Amino acid sequence: MEIVCNQNEFNYAIQLVSKAVASRPTHPILANLLLTADQGTNKISLTGFDLNLGIQTSFDATVNKSGAITIPSKLLSEIVNKLPSETPVSLDVDESSDNILIKSDRGSFNIKGIPSDDYPSLPFVESGTSLNIDPSSFLKALKLTIFASSSDDSKQLLTGVNFTFNLKYLESAATDGHRLAVVLVDNKENFDEKEDFASNEENLSVTIPTRSLREIEKLVSLRSSENSIKLFYDKGQVVFISSNQIITTRTLEGSYPNYSQLIPDNFTKIFTFNTKKIIESLERIAVLADQQSSVVKIKLNEKDLALVSADAQDIGNASELVPVSFYFDQFDIAFNVRYLLEGLKVISSENVIFKCNLPTTPAVLVPEDNINSFTYLVMPVQVRS
Amino acid sequence: MEIVCNQNEFNYAIQLVSKAVASRPTHPILANLLLTADQGTNKISLTGFDLNLGIQTSFDATVNKSGAITIPSKLLSEIVNKLPSETPVSLDVDESSDNILIKSDRGSFNIKGIPSDDYPSLPFVESGTSLNIDPSSFLKALKLTIFASSSDDSKQLLTGVNFTFNLKYLESAATDGHRLAVVLVDNKENFDEKEDFASNEENLSVTIPTRSLREIEKLVSLRSSENSIKLFYDKGQVVFISSNQIITTRTLEGSYPNYSQLIPDNFTKIFTFNTKKIIESLERIAVLADQQSSVVKIKLNEKDLALVSADAQDIGNASELVPVSFYFDQFDIAFNVRYLLEGLKVISSENVIFKCNLPTTPAVLVPEDNINSFTYLVMPVQVRS
Repeated sequence: MEIVCNQNEFNYAIQLVSKAVASRPTHPILANLLLTADQGTNKISLTGFDLNLGIQTSFDATVNKSGAITIPSKLLSEIVNKLPSETPVSLDVDESSDNILIKSDRGSFNIKGIPSDDYPSLPFVESGTSLNIDPSSFLKALKLTIFASSSDDSKQLLTGVNFTFNLKYLESAATDGHRLAVVLVDNKENFDEKEDFASNEENLSVTIPTRSLREIEKLVSLRSSENSIKLFYDKGQVVFISSNQIITTRTLEGSYPNYSQLIPDNFTKIFTFNTKKIIESLERIAVLADQQSSVVKIKLNEKDLALVSADAQDIGNASELVPVSFYFDQFDIAFNVRYLLEGLKVISSENVIFKCNLPTTPAVLVPEDNINSFTYLVMPVQVRS
Repeated sequence: MEIVCNQNEFNYAIQLVSKAVASRPTHPILANLLLTADQGTNKISLTGFDLNLGIQTSFDATVNKSGAITIPSKLLSEIVNKLPSETPVSLDVDESSDNILIKSDRGSFNIKGIPSDDYPSLPFVESGTSLNIDPSSFLKALKLTIFASSSDDSKQLLTGVNFTFNLKYLESAATDGHRLAVVLVDNKENFDEKEDFASNEENLSVTIPTRSLREIEKLVSLRSSENSIKLFYDKGQVVFISSNQIITTRTLEGSYPNYSQLIPDNFTKIFTFNTKKIIESLERIAVLADQQSSVVKIKLNEKDLALVSADAQDIGNASELVPVSFYFDQFDIAFNVRYLLEGLKVISSENVIFKCNLPTTPAVLVPEDNINSFTYLVMPVQVRS
């Protein structure tokens, strides 16, 4: 293989695909990136793959001789990152020894590669379901739910975010058993009507590991100006394809909990806070709450004011009066302040509506300006009063 | 105690003195800040002290009732930091229960303090040697040496930076046994002629722990516009006093190694690099060098070019040609690339002079534009060639 490329493009591609390289690879070749060069198209392709998440990107270069090799990811990344910006970088591979010679106008590096034959193939899904998704809708759905997924590996399906795609909408949901975030993004303008998708199935439901989604989020953010990303789904794999990138991730198998049945249909206690004001108060009260149980109490009995408070035995206590609108006599409820704050912080609406029944039954938070777009269910905490 | 102060001033003072609070205090009261309020002067004073480093600052407030109390540092810091900016904060202490009531216009916090009686006094040095130092000269001396001190606690005196003050100059030095950095800052304009200092002693030599110096560096940076800082030294303690801050630190006892005798008087191999170019090359070569021994080789035998290289067995090798000026036949020497880079990075001169004798004897780096201001001695590494 003999190629010449631009330092910036090479560096950008390496940083991108390195995100899919395992920090503690189970096999030496998984610490490497796969580099392939095609003389016919004058394109270089770079791949990183940890057997769960795979990222592939390609860019233009001068390819004097086609070939493929795998290169230690961390070493290549550090070398190319430190080469002078915007200068040509040449890379020659000696196929008999797998030695890689990297040359810039300043000097040269010799490093040892591993033949590409043993590098695992990315799971390309050629058949199965496919659809087009709008990057900004997908990002919005992701941002509003990903924080509610579980970080406890034993919780399996709950360590991912569930996506339901159909012709009318994209719905995403995440729960860790204590709270649930559900987002509904309208599909009318966002998704292309795809004939085979429409005819074959009504809904496509996949659960994607949160760990993969955090990388996918970064990659899609870079591409959010593009019109659409193609998504393929088959046999436990999802593949996202944009103009010059491919991201593959395994999915979490099993049927995701039927979360919609957890959300009560009717509520007897409905009250409204200014989102910014309740967040600021809760953040102050959290300083005390976090000293022990993270429990914050909300007491409604004074007209237009809620008493928000926390107690930490032997350390101290904190209380604030926060403006609130409600039309009932009185109501007391307590929450884990962290769960409450995480849900409130993704709500962009000026006001937030709290919907409750009893201090022991699930509460639901919705943005006042679009009550059907986002639902955040959180279990209250029972406290002795 | 009853005080009212401004959130911003209170917050700034807390963040400042918190730096002297131990992260793992040996006694509960050392996790607290000392707050004293004086109705006569309408001033509040805050103190943090980990028994090695002490920081005290004071600011104006409305003091309705004098008093003193110690308050959990982390809790106070988080509470005050989250209160609305630029608003008044009141703090009332109930002397019988040591309960502290912190009130802003939004709400209130009750936290438990510890009486101030058990809080250790800052070591005020009233007698002993005193002198005025210029903050910017002190910072310069610190920046050019602190990196060369040892982080190995068993190396005692070498875990600090040695300062020698006299009427003519300020000299600072640090070494970890592998390299030595020495700075000479001219005293002519920078220090006040202090009659008692001049008459009592010729030199004042103190070794201050690097850990304290890192905090002192930050504090002095905030004050570098001020004309001078007063320094007192006595009985294993140094006290820095600026307009409204006091910093105390214990010193490292014992006589600092006579480092000047380590620096050779004459050199037979003298060569000059462009500082920026040699740093950039070494940083690239370091990628390979750091894979194993961190050793970088410098080979001078081609007119005006040095071959800078590193080998990492089974991984690869790297080499670059770097412009150099020298007037001898040839010379090879090898260094730990990290030691070399750390010294080069504090040199602001366009060119740097390397002064050597043999590949096994100490090398000295000096800035070309002011060869007496900074001396960086580094031991070479012996390599089989």
